[in-house]
Amino acid sequence: MAGNKVIIVGASGAVGQEMLKIMEERNFPVSELKLCATERSAGQEMLFKGKAYTVEETTPASFEGMEIAFFAGGEASLEFGPLAAEMGAVVIDNSSNFRLDPDVPLVVPEVNPEDVKTHKGIIANPNCSTIIMVVPLKAIYDVAGIKRVVVSTYQAVSGAGAEGITELTEHTRAALDGGEVVPSKFQYPIAFNLIPHIDVFQEMDYTKEEWKMVKETRKILHDDALQITATTVRVPVYRSHSESINIETKSKVTAEHAKKILADFPGVIVQDSPADKKYPMPLYTSGKDEIFVGRIREDNSVDKGLNIWVVADQLRKGAATNAIQIAELLIKYDCLGKR
Amino acid sequence: MAGNKVIIVGASGAVGQEMLKIMEERNFPVSELKLCATERSAGQEMLFKGKAYTVEETTPASFEGMEIAFFAGGEASLEFGPLAAEMGAVVIDNSSNFRLDPDVPLVVPEVNPEDVKTHKGIIANPNCSTIIMVVPLKAIYDVAGIKRVVVSTYQAVSGAGAEGITELTEHTRAALDGGEVVPSKFQYPIAFNLIPHIDVFQEMDYTKEEWKMVKETRKILHDDALQITATTVRVPVYRSHSESINIETKSKVTAEHAKKILADFPGVIVQDSPADKKYPMPLYTSGKDEIFVGRIREDNSVDKGLNIWVVADQLRKGAATNAIQIAELLIKYDCLGKR
Repeated sequence: MAGNKVIIVGASGAVGQEMLKIMEERNFPVSELKLCATERSAGQEMLFKGKAYTVEETTPASFEGMEIAFFAGGEASLEFGPLAAEMGAVVIDNSSNFRLDPDVPLVVPEVNPEDVKTHKGIIANPNCSTIIMVVPLKAIYDVAGIKRVVVSTYQAVSGAGAEGITELTEHTRAALDGGEVVPSKFQYPIAFNLIPHIDVFQEMDYTKEEWKMVKETRKILHDDALQITATTVRVPVYRSHSESINIETKSKVTAEHAKKILADFPGVIVQDSPADKKYPMPLYTSGKDEIFVGRIREDNSVDKGLNIWVVADQLRKGAATNAIQIAELLIKYDCLGKR
Repeated sequence: MAGNKVIIVGASGAVGQEMLKIMEERNFPVSELKLCATERSAGQEMLFKGKAYTVEETTPASFEGMEIAFFAGGEASLEFGPLAAEMGAVVIDNSSNFRLDPDVPLVVPEVNPEDVKTHKGIIANPNCSTIIMVVPLKAIYDVAGIKRVVVSTYQAVSGAGAEGITELTEHTRAALDGGEVVPSKFQYPIAFNLIPHIDVFQEMDYTKEEWKMVKETRKILHDDALQITATTVRVPVYRSHSESINIETKSKVTAEHAKKILADFPGVIVQDSPADKKYPMPLYTSGKDEIFVGRIREDNSVDKGLNIWVVADQLRKGAATNAIQIAELLIKYDCLGKR
């Protein structure tokens, strides 16, 4: 039977569900499918191409004979990732566990597809905010080079999973109707508020999310000299992350040229017509696989500067879609089961 | 009777109401008070220190004998501002009509108080986003100089007046409960969305709001060489604007030093303790007069860089409080009725 033996670990979570949906949409070739999760979620039924699959608890035996193992996130890949690879699967891991490991390629298919060929059993899927930024950056990078990036993010609650979504709804109702707000997934009430704190604080008082944007972008672009600083902020939006990105290029790029470069780049849609009030917004990019770029302007505060406003569905292109695209590359380059 | 003869034009709007409240809170010396607005709002009653005042329609006669004329915003100061000044009042105008006029000082009392002394009858109150940025910038500027600023804003709906507030509530209810959303004050539904478009588009595809942040900041700091680029975004927050500000200084400032400089500056409160999850958020700064600064970090992507996260109530310090403070300076410097 044509297709691959595929396991999704963390299938019942927000990203896992999305992976299943996207495999179906893209008609990803599957000959055998196993859906796994923690004990708590085992027993749930999920549909794939009209057929019901029961979610099983992940155990070492789950990986027997599997060719592609998607890990949707969290700690599971620490426990089972290396084992799955050893048992012959190529692991595509959406967690941050292996992203900066020099033996693990970190891949965005539009940016560094060839890197999948160097895998030793595990390929890492970058952080959602990084993916959304690095695709338009690569378009500019190839044409003009990039010296420095200053990015401020506006990140949706679904970046914190299904609980983040529930919490935004509950906090919003409480704020409108009166009622108590007990933050659990977020540090503070998120309704009608902004929280400049995503993931844990690390060195120099940057959050881990901010460091991910710096370090992962350098790794994906293979450029350790690329200067980046980031400020990441949670906003009361359900889905799709937005980013205000200031770019200092090495050679001059006009706004017109930047629009053309971006429009020509795979996976990018330019929405930029101020006269028609056309610019990307999270409400309209959710459920889409492309990265939407607008507000493309020259920045004359430096010799060679650009501002862009980027919005994309962080559960799709920022996570699940990118992972499935990596698996498609593995098939295209015939890199499965060969190492 | 001690105090000044004060008129507020646009008294019934969001900023006008706030001006009245702040005059009362600060015990601003008033011997006579006149509240004016358009015909539509005339007849409303408003309280000041327990006494009811009836809002009158603004006419040339309204300014007879007045010493201080606050204009809360909009077109009114174009029609009546120069006349009020001619009739002897000092006009303190919250609109953008005269801000860039070389004959009109543009004043933030913590930053350029002496400029009030140069007035020729009209003093302009800066744009809210500008005020909130320029106060912490000035603290850094005085100690280290500033070469370049990259700012991205997260602006509350009340920046668009009382209608903005109503629209956020209505759009949010419609989004939660189902129902039709008809944007009127904003370009698109604002609930659970972000709109990267504030005020009209102008040259280089920057919005007027973005140009205000560039041009007004230069004027207030008397530094036309200061390089600034801005991206302004409306967010579903009721009150208090937030700004992610990247600063390139002329001499090196450590994060520790920046915290001290900012904490020592008038009108600024530093909230910055990542270990205690302490950073400014719009939900907790509304109704306050200070500018809250946190997430103070060195930015190593340039030689001398800093990141700060700034939040302040844009109706108070960003508008009404700043206007009343200007009036207090006029009294302190004895600049009323003398020109």
